[in-house]
Amino acid sequence: MKFGGTSVADIDCIRNVAAHIKREWDAGKEIAVVVSAMAGETNRLVALTAENVVRPDPAEYDAVVAAGEQVSMGLLAMALQALGVPARSWAGWQLPIRTSPDHAKARITDVDTAGIEDGWASRQVAVIPGFQGLGPDGRLTTLGRGGSDTSAVGIAAALDAQCDIYTDVDGVYTTDPRMVPGARKLERIAYEEMLELASQGTKVLQTRSVELAMVHGVPLRVVLSFADPARPEPGTLVCSEDEIVEKQVVTGIAYSRDEAKITLLGVADEPGVASRIFGALADANINVDMIVQNISEDGQVTDLTFTVGKADLESAVEALEKGKNSVKCRKLLSETGVAKVSVIGIGMRSHAGVARTMFEALGKAGINIQVISTSEIKVSVLIDSKETERAVRALHDAYGLETA
Amino acid sequence: MKFGGTSVADIDCIRNVAAHIKREWDAGKEIAVVVSAMAGETNRLVALTAENVVRPDPAEYDAVVAAGEQVSMGLLAMALQALGVPARSWAGWQLPIRTSPDHAKARITDVDTAGIEDGWASRQVAVIPGFQGLGPDGRLTTLGRGGSDTSAVGIAAALDAQCDIYTDVDGVYTTDPRMVPGARKLERIAYEEMLELASQGTKVLQTRSVELAMVHGVPLRVVLSFADPARPEPGTLVCSEDEIVEKQVVTGIAYSRDEAKITLLGVADEPGVASRIFGALADANINVDMIVQNISEDGQVTDLTFTVGKADLESAVEALEKGKNSVKCRKLLSETGVAKVSVIGIGMRSHAGVARTMFEALGKAGINIQVISTSEIKVSVLIDSKETERAVRALHDAYGLETA
Repeated sequence: MKFGGTSVADIDCIRNVAAHIKREWDAGKEIAVVVSAMAGETNRLVALTAENVVRPDPAEYDAVVAAGEQVSMGLLAMALQALGVPARSWAGWQLPIRTSPDHAKARITDVDTAGIEDGWASRQVAVIPGFQGLGPDGRLTTLGRGGSDTSAVGIAAALDAQCDIYTDVDGVYTTDPRMVPGARKLERIAYEEMLELASQGTKVLQTRSVELAMVHGVPLRVVLSFADPARPEPGTLVCSEDEIVEKQVVTGIAYSRDEAKITLLGVADEPGVASRIFGALADANINVDMIVQNISEDGQVTDLTFTVGKADLESAVEALEKGKNSVKCRKLLSETGVAKVSVIGIGMRSHAGVARTMFEALGKAGINIQVISTSEIKVSVLIDSKETERAVRALHDAYGLETA
Repeated sequence: MKFGGTSVADIDCIRNVAAHIKREWDAGKEIAVVVSAMAGETNRLVALTAENVVRPDPAEYDAVVAAGEQVSMGLLAMALQALGVPARSWAGWQLPIRTSPDHAKARITDVDTAGIEDGWASRQVAVIPGFQGLGPDGRLTTLGRGGSDTSAVGIAAALDAQCDIYTDVDGVYTTDPRMVPGARKLERIAYEEMLELASQGTKVLQTRSVELAMVHGVPLRVVLSFADPARPEPGTLVCSEDEIVEKQVVTGIAYSRDEAKITLLGVADEPGVASRIFGALADANINVDMIVQNISEDGQVTDLTFTVGKADLESAVEALEKGKNSVKCRKLLSETGVAKVSVIGIGMRSHAGVARTMFEALGKAGINIQVISTSEIKVSVLIDSKETERAVRALHDAYGLETA
């Protein structure tokens, strides 16, 4: 079980979490709990380091920001004990949860579960801080923001257990329910679909945690933290494709407004030009998402359009202008008022016509498509960001997701 | 070097501390720094545990409250690096600083200094969180409130180094300078004197840290944290008697208003009665300070007066009433409006007349003495707490401490 920052935001929340764990424990389950820092605490610690120095030493940064989880782990363990549930905390360095040496973005390499399993022998609940581990040099590491989901999946994989992620939503929906009131909660979703949904802007689970769950086949359940104990909700199970009997052609609609579009007009249509352009961006550590290159009419020059994260736009333009000599083009256009809307579903693999339905629905709604990109289980379009909500609604309708 | 919570209260303070360490480092010194949690942080964490459960598990309590020092250690290490001083943090479990298993009041049993000394070989400054250590079972322990001074002395002892305690006062004074403007800063003071001053209510150093320094012969310097770098102040050196050439008969005047007086009238004057009375108090975990038993006039009954901490008065009375059958007395009187004033000096051992000067000075000031108690290097009297300030001033004058 993993509880995020809002689930342990204050002592009352921590007591609620403890009461919920007790119910599961009373049912005879063997439990390891991964807990985030209290809501706002990691931000407070990050702000302290930022106020302190411009480029903090990553190892010291990790020592500072890992402190938040140490506090919540102790508080939850004592709250469990107060309810008569035997519990003890295991810091990342105590189990240990071994990681790569990459501070602030470490990857779990190995989880020693002996402590947890010894505790289980006497019905003890293990409380483990998320987000942190022990580097090969014996120093604290952290897994990057949202790393607690990854901790939970890593520990579940090592224990060969199911991983329940308790969060402030009651499951994964066909699309953002705040945008489309008729959005439907999914009972099951495949890892691949969840990955597309997560990276396409549905912020329920951290992408890395879904990847890790997929690799290790860990069943991942998204559950509401503060559900009515009298009416427990099953949430959504993220699992392998084989465990989904009725495969939907389209499972969900994702959107992201954090996009920016760059167009290079009059790029020389010759070998190596793309690698020079995207090499310059990669060197500047900028992730490029959708890429469209138009057919060259005259065989001399072509136009190239791609998207980057909105926050990266400035440095992307800078990197391209700095590389002007190698990245020759007539004109560089950039624009931020764009959004990406994606239609996702594993059933697409065996069903034609998904893209056509999408384009028809958007056309009928009078929404202009700027860029199209597709993968095996996804079709994405770039549109004017002002049209996001209308587009998502139109697509949700077009695929009949409300009643599917 | 040890810096307390007010010295690292915010990022500006931490930068000041780093700048000071850099000056010492520039002078070629090998440095280990012990740092407390940022001011208020430990109280915040203790309050969280108190809000959470009534009797927190001591091991979980330690995990929670040790987090504050982990934050300040990382922040100080990165602030040093930003000034070009190589530095790294060593958590209590990393060095490790081994302690007894007594959570929340552990004692240091062993400090492994290999990490610190390896760092020194490349001029690295070690930054170590105070207050925390590693218990024999591999769990975090803490040393109790004010434990950071003890950490610093323990580490200095293991390194055979001097220990500079940076604090918000610029040294140890003949008495409280807020009470007596003419109080004089002492250049040196013997461990024994400092112990008496500390436990008599002069809250500059934690008593346990002075004891530890005395046992290991660690020279302990009390220095002002935020002194003008252009005019460094030597502070006060706490050292062994042999290093003090000019031994003062009286070194300082201490006072404490946290006292309460209990008098048992008509106690049976027979063997074993004192042990029953003070045994009952010890069982209730109450420290008794001054004890005076009057001579029995008739050989039948006597009166017994003693003092306890003001906070303990209620439970002391309770413990005595509960033990009424074994602690027989005619009447029990208790009173809180009392203060203890003490005259301290190692020179007393070889000088008569110290007590007489004290009684004369108080008599001249018209201050009534309720109880007297003496040790080898101290004379204490209990007086009406309203007279504290007048008494301290009269004694400071009487022993000529201002100009000594």
